Amino acid sequence: MEKINIALVGYGNVGRGVEEALKLNADTELVAVLTRRPEQVRKELNDLPVFHIDEKPGDIQIDVAILCGGSKEDIPVQGPKFAERFNTVDSFDTHAEIPSYFQKMDSIAKERGHVHVISTGWDPGIFSLMRVLCDAFLPQSKQYTFWGEGISQGHSDAARKVVDVLDARAYTIPIEQAVRRVRTGETPEFAKREMHKRMVYAVAEEGADIERIRRDIAAMPHYYDDYDTEIVFISKEDMRKNHSKLPHGGFVLTSGVTGEGNKQILEYRCQLESNPEFTANVLVACARAAFRLSMDGYRGAFTMLDIAPRYLSPHSAETLRKSFM
Amino acid sequence: MEKINIALVGYGNVGRGVEEALKLNADTELVAVLTRRPEQVRKELNDLPVFHIDEKPGDIQIDVAILCGGSKEDIPVQGPKFAERFNTVDSFDTHAEIPSYFQKMDSIAKERGHVHVISTGWDPGIFSLMRVLCDAFLPQSKQYTFWGEGISQGHSDAARKVVDVLDARAYTIPIEQAVRRVRTGETPEFAKREMHKRMVYAVAEEGADIERIRRDIAAMPHYYDDYDTEIVFISKEDMRKNHSKLPHGGFVLTSGVTGEGNKQILEYRCQLESNPEFTANVLVACARAAFRLSMDGYRGAFTMLDIAPRYLSPHSAETLRKSFM
Repeated sequence: MEKINIALVGYGNVGRGVEEALKLNADTELVAVLTRRPEQVRKELNDLPVFHIDEKPGDIQIDVAILCGGSKEDIPVQGPKFAERFNTVDSFDTHAEIPSYFQKMDSIAKERGHVHVISTGWDPGIFSLMRVLCDAFLPQSKQYTFWGEGISQGHSDAARKVVDVLDARAYTIPIEQAVRRVRTGETPEFAKREMHKRMVYAVAEEGADIERIRRDIAAMPHYYDDYDTEIVFISKEDMRKNHSKLPHGGFVLTSGVTGEGNKQILEYRCQLESNPEFTANVLVACARAAFRLSMDGYRGAFTMLDIAPRYLSPHSAETLRKSFM
Repeated sequence: MEKINIALVGYGNVGRGVEEALKLNADTELVAVLTRRPEQVRKELNDLPVFHIDEKPGDIQIDVAILCGGSKEDIPVQGPKFAERFNTVDSFDTHAEIPSYFQKMDSIAKERGHVHVISTGWDPGIFSLMRVLCDAFLPQSKQYTFWGEGISQGHSDAARKVVDVLDARAYTIPIEQAVRRVRTGETPEFAKREMHKRMVYAVAEEGADIERIRRDIAAMPHYYDDYDTEIVFISKEDMRKNHSKLPHGGFVLTSGVTGEGNKQILEYRCQLESNPEFTANVLVACARAAFRLSMDGYRGAFTMLDIAPRYLSPHSAETLRKSFM
């Protein structure tokens, strides 16, 4: 079998997760890593070509570049840059900026002839897909997305960008009473802060202005300003010991009525012991789709809403019809 | 807005559900009903053209014909027949025969230039989609589909075909102990009969050979032979009074492991007070997709695995990116 040649851009939690995920997918192969710190990464990856992120990776055949960096500073720059040369997949998760990022990637794609699958992963990504499907299946229904309890990488990254924050982990916590009301069939209107709260554990630079950090985090637009956020300062030691795992979970609930008052409830739920490892697996499935879409002659930016599900699967259309229908 | 013109083929539970569902979807319009009993149906539908199923519906513009009959005798005949003239959508649910039905519809589609979305609804349909997606996101995982407790229309129809059965309702019941094991993270191998049992309430012709009916139902291939089936004979009165609702439910569980033993569990769940009304809504979303795919120049048979999710939605791609991602 001809394998799909994958390059990683970035080698953090998600990058390492993708490296592991590729081993589970027999039709893919990791052929290069591009990183800001090639010297360090080379020590971890003996057998693999490692390049500085600004280097051209020589004559290595790359079918899809998976962008494994953060949404706040990495992907908005790396997306358009790597789109010039490769099919790409990313997990850009700043919801409010997805439409403009899509436009940018789409216009580069049309010029250069590539496929770019943007904003994949869990949410945006699978949960987006579920919202669209369940809304289509139950028109005039109400939808609720609950996240947690778990660590949000996007929100942790964001908190880490605040001056004098050395490290941070942000937990998303669904508000139990809200969940209970929806599960028992009520369809209330919630403000964002009535559905979730956020809890940030932060390590601050010695002598930093703790109150200023608190304010800076709590006021970050798109990330924290719509929620009640509790911020707890802890030691590096405490962070390493008690907050090194990256679990997450959540569910999309769609509640509708058909005919003469028949209640119809659809629910999609994730329960993840490792969020980045799961996101990594979704990125790999989308890399497969990007490659196949490009082989089928498609050009442009895609979200998971634009991809026929069979493109994501390692199995043939025949096998899917025979064994999965 | 130019509406999508829909014709119904068949006017039973699902047909009536589709009629209701179309009212919730502003971009669709019911323009004709084709049925085996036009005289009766005309009494129910004053304002709508009603034709005998073998009649040509005059010069009415039909964009998509939704086949609302049963999988055992209606759709295998009506699919190929209506495919000659229209885009079609159906809920053909004999899992084992989907590949050959797909081939047949696909070859007619290529000849006549239509789109045929086959085997939609809940399962096959949404659950198929979930199996494929969750398998792609968690390679080397294990999947379990549980149905019920609820009434299976396909199995009820099948039982009704047995000689001397006047009416029947088949309940699918998940075996609780099996569900509990999977939910707590075990990944056992189950035989079909270890996951579900079936319970059939039947009304028999007076003086019928009850034991022969019992054997005939229990032995039906694809439907009953792999399960423990309890068959209870009741009166017409009892059937009408206690088994007239058509609830159903079920869930697809995918259980996988990534990295160093991190458990990842995905679950999709339906809880439906009216199965045919929900199926009807899925048929309508697929009719929208069939129409749009045909407008985009596609030709052929499609399952829900072959359709980009945005085609199913009443909203524009821009709205989906802005409000659902």
